[in-house]
Amino acid sequence: MKITVAQLNYHIGNFERNKDHICNAIRKAKTEGSDLIVFSELCIPGYPPLDLLDRLDFIEKCNLTVNEIANECTGIAAIVGSPTLNRKPEGKKLFNSALLLSEGKVIFSSNKALLPTYDIFDEYRYFEPENRFSVFSFRGLRLAITICEDLWDEQPFDNEFEKTRLYTVSPMEELARQNPDIIINISASPFSYSKIEAKENIFRAKAIKYNIPVISVNQTGANTELIFDGASIIVNKKGEIFNQLPFFEEAVETYSFDDINSGSAFRKDARPGIVPLMHKALVTGIRDYFAKTSFKSCIIGLSGGIDSAICLCLAVEAMGNENVRALLMPSRYSSDHSVKDAVALANTLNVHYDIINIERPFTAFEGELAPLFEGKNKDVTEENIQARIRATLLMAVSNKYGCILLNTSNKSEAAVGYGTLYGDMAGGLSVIGDVYKTDVYRLADYINRNGEIIPENTIKKFPSAELRPDQHDTDSLPDYNILDSILYQYIELQKPAGRIVSEGSDMDTVFKVIKMIDFNEYKRYQAPPVLRISSKAFGAGRRMPLVARY
Amino acid sequence: MKITVAQLNYHIGNFERNKDHICNAIRKAKTEGSDLIVFSELCIPGYPPLDLLDRLDFIEKCNLTVNEIANECTGIAAIVGSPTLNRKPEGKKLFNSALLLSEGKVIFSSNKALLPTYDIFDEYRYFEPENRFSVFSFRGLRLAITICEDLWDEQPFDNEFEKTRLYTVSPMEELARQNPDIIINISASPFSYSKIEAKENIFRAKAIKYNIPVISVNQTGANTELIFDGASIIVNKKGEIFNQLPFFEEAVETYSFDDINSGSAFRKDARPGIVPLMHKALVTGIRDYFAKTSFKSCIIGLSGGIDSAICLCLAVEAMGNENVRALLMPSRYSSDHSVKDAVALANTLNVHYDIINIERPFTAFEGELAPLFEGKNKDVTEENIQARIRATLLMAVSNKYGCILLNTSNKSEAAVGYGTLYGDMAGGLSVIGDVYKTDVYRLADYINRNGEIIPENTIKKFPSAELRPDQHDTDSLPDYNILDSILYQYIELQKPAGRIVSEGSDMDTVFKVIKMIDFNEYKRYQAPPVLRISSKAFGAGRRMPLVARY
Repeated sequence: MKITVAQLNYHIGNFERNKDHICNAIRKAKTEGSDLIVFSELCIPGYPPLDLLDRLDFIEKCNLTVNEIANECTGIAAIVGSPTLNRKPEGKKLFNSALLLSEGKVIFSSNKALLPTYDIFDEYRYFEPENRFSVFSFRGLRLAITICEDLWDEQPFDNEFEKTRLYTVSPMEELARQNPDIIINISASPFSYSKIEAKENIFRAKAIKYNIPVISVNQTGANTELIFDGASIIVNKKGEIFNQLPFFEEAVETYSFDDINSGSAFRKDARPGIVPLMHKALVTGIRDYFAKTSFKSCIIGLSGGIDSAICLCLAVEAMGNENVRALLMPSRYSSDHSVKDAVALANTLNVHYDIINIERPFTAFEGELAPLFEGKNKDVTEENIQARIRATLLMAVSNKYGCILLNTSNKSEAAVGYGTLYGDMAGGLSVIGDVYKTDVYRLADYINRNGEIIPENTIKKFPSAELRPDQHDTDSLPDYNILDSILYQYIELQKPAGRIVSEGSDMDTVFKVIKMIDFNEYKRYQAPPVLRISSKAFGAGRRMPLVARY
Repeated sequence: MKITVAQLNYHIGNFERNKDHICNAIRKAKTEGSDLIVFSELCIPGYPPLDLLDRLDFIEKCNLTVNEIANECTGIAAIVGSPTLNRKPEGKKLFNSALLLSEGKVIFSSNKALLPTYDIFDEYRYFEPENRFSVFSFRGLRLAITICEDLWDEQPFDNEFEKTRLYTVSPMEELARQNPDIIINISASPFSYSKIEAKENIFRAKAIKYNIPVISVNQTGANTELIFDGASIIVNKKGEIFNQLPFFEEAVETYSFDDINSGSAFRKDARPGIVPLMHKALVTGIRDYFAKTSFKSCIIGLSGGIDSAICLCLAVEAMGNENVRALLMPSRYSSDHSVKDAVALANTLNVHYDIINIERPFTAFEGELAPLFEGKNKDVTEENIQARIRATLLMAVSNKYGCILLNTSNKSEAAVGYGTLYGDMAGGLSVIGDVYKTDVYRLADYINRNGEIIPENTIKKFPSAELRPDQHDTDSLPDYNILDSILYQYIELQKPAGRIVSEGSDMDTVFKVIKMIDFNEYKRYQAPPVLRISSKAFGAGRRMPLVARY
């Protein structure tokens, strides 16, 4: 008995492309003499399809595609993920299903029981939870087919307030009573740099608990904010990792069940480190955003600072230098080295750049507003005007040349609202909006690991928005090491303020930072989608009321 | 036995204010000799608290506030809504509870079973559904206490694809077996102009089915996008409306159970029409956004067109003319009447206005971009620059004077992407982003019902963005009557394209419009929060993937 793991990159709603992709993998598996090929959760429509699931025509397209793929399954069976109609008179209209296809037919189906509805997940919005569970015997092998969260009936949450057991049923406990030989888990589990080991441990623990191997197949590639790492995993019955597919790449690999089961072929390459994985995740996120929207090129406002430098490097790696352009927009407050450092980086990466000084539009705005602002002091207003002039210039080039503006704000800035709405917060996609400033520096070191790409001066200088004379980020923010530590505890770990203080942070700083985070919900509401690499990113995973007082 | 209905306006997370409000109502009820006062769903934290529910300190604050209110309940009992901890080892950490308070204690609690998780609702994100149901006997009256959706086990959805029965249990069926005398329903049910009658019919049908009266208490007031109409309803056992509290206003009213039960005092004022209710909803939405964020004043870009005119009228009604300012920003493409009509409206409403011609900043941008745009034709780029200059000016005044920019885009424009991101799509709150253009005209007629406020010319002229010579909306869009009909069918009713065509719309127009809607998800992603008055508004209630191809 041979089983093929198909870790593919799907495009939401692009049924033709997904089908071709799936059928190519089936053909490859056939040539390798495989009996069963396993794809990932909701691979037919791509994950997450969100409210497209509310459209009957969309579901009909899923069914049609499943049937077409079933016809490809001659001499081989395939497990695919698709929404299916709930035929009962009551309940949600759909199930999130794993379908076993063979010789033109669906010969078995299994529906998801544990529907993640937290963070970025909204599955109970669409799906009815299943409450009956069956092992299916295929070519003599008793398969326990589960869908993603179905195996996660116990899991560690970053927020201690969450229960370890989020559900009142355990599908695998039910299936275990039917003596399965193997657990097949199809998933669509997004990358989070803090969850890599925890995820592996879930599968290892289940293999040990039930004393059978686990094959878990994840999708790879990015869909807007969500980046899926693949890293599909095969665990032997002793809980050892028999093999793991690559991170952020497609792969189709065939294994013999006996090899997996015996555990004799145990092998595991060392997992890449966290910073290289963050880097690869972000490159994947940019690449797929463009590949899947069919836009070919991007523009970045290059300031000479570290954030835009990192984004330029990531974009060049994702799209090629010929598809990336930079715009330098110095002002009366820019330091000499800003333009010099930006030009050096553009030259090193061989990226086209233009320089526009914003003095003339700035003067025009100041002139027009002078009568309205008579007697008023200069303040953040004038800083914001400069940031908005830059956004207007970037968007003008974006409009004229059909290139998408990449946003270069980092997570620390986004958290405390250190940025201008419709100014430096503009862009089609936020590249590092889920990367804390201290991790931005780590990424810079990684990018420079084989020699200087990002100028040393860009890395070494004090961070500054350069919107007024001698401005430094630390004028209004704590040191980034301190800031990021508070942010991580408040945002990712969701610790109360008092707890952060009692565990060692300065009280005034903690309260000041939290006040800034809460006050700036309105800005983040209008921010671009953010490539998500943490366990709690701004965007759909964190839903805060705007007019609350708490 | 006297029962008081307390229809109040809550501020999310503002426990002190909510408590004071609740305690004042309790005191009033005491003076009226009431036995029981009923507040609305989650009144303690205010609805919807969203991810604040993920914070243990927030839940502890809820508990504390409940206890303080319980101490106020001497000689009277109160039903309040609050999250409570789920003490079981597994499942979601919270229940959405109705708590019966009396003499300093919680004497009974009932948890919500049917957790709406569709459109703007995410309740299964936070709450464990209850599966046990008990009637509670209070002063001789057997109360069936239900929470909002618990009574909505059958409901009509706009999307025909949804099932009428969305849940597999019916709390009221279970409670009915225990012979209750009355159904108490505490709710937090947002306004939607197409659901007014459907909502009443739910309560009337339950009263008839179980042959007992229903008291349903809703909150009023707005929390960011969501506007709650109150309109709490008392239905006698024949299903007749015994009384209904006002729309969009606080009210505390006391009734005798015998009067309600006998049905003899049946009375009902005529319900206001749909357009007056839309109007009142939007005014409430603006008023509460400012009251609850503590911002005092707003600014609106006044073009002479109907959208900004409507918004100015609504803002003046909500906040008073002294807290509203207008900025007129004509360009080389503005028609003569634009400034004239805008000035006329500002004068009629006695609103402060300034005029800034955008020619100089526009020329400055054109000059700086000329080298980059050499050999390129003029296109939408130049139109967008004008829109972004206006946003920059509006935001500059907003920053300098601390007034919030109100966005004036309508739902038809937002749907087809007829607007400039970071330009006319800017603002802290979208006033009419859930109002189709054809309804904008209805609102204008309503505002002018007692004499001309909005100039006739503003209402009569062809809609135009005035971003190039002789531009009209119909150059790139179908007539608004046709457009809005297609939009409503696609967005609210979620009909497939083929169905809209087969029911009488022109095929090319339908496909063109739907393509525009789908393509412009990325713009709406960054739009301000939209005051919601329909059954499907853009924003949190409609979650579409950005990089899909469907």
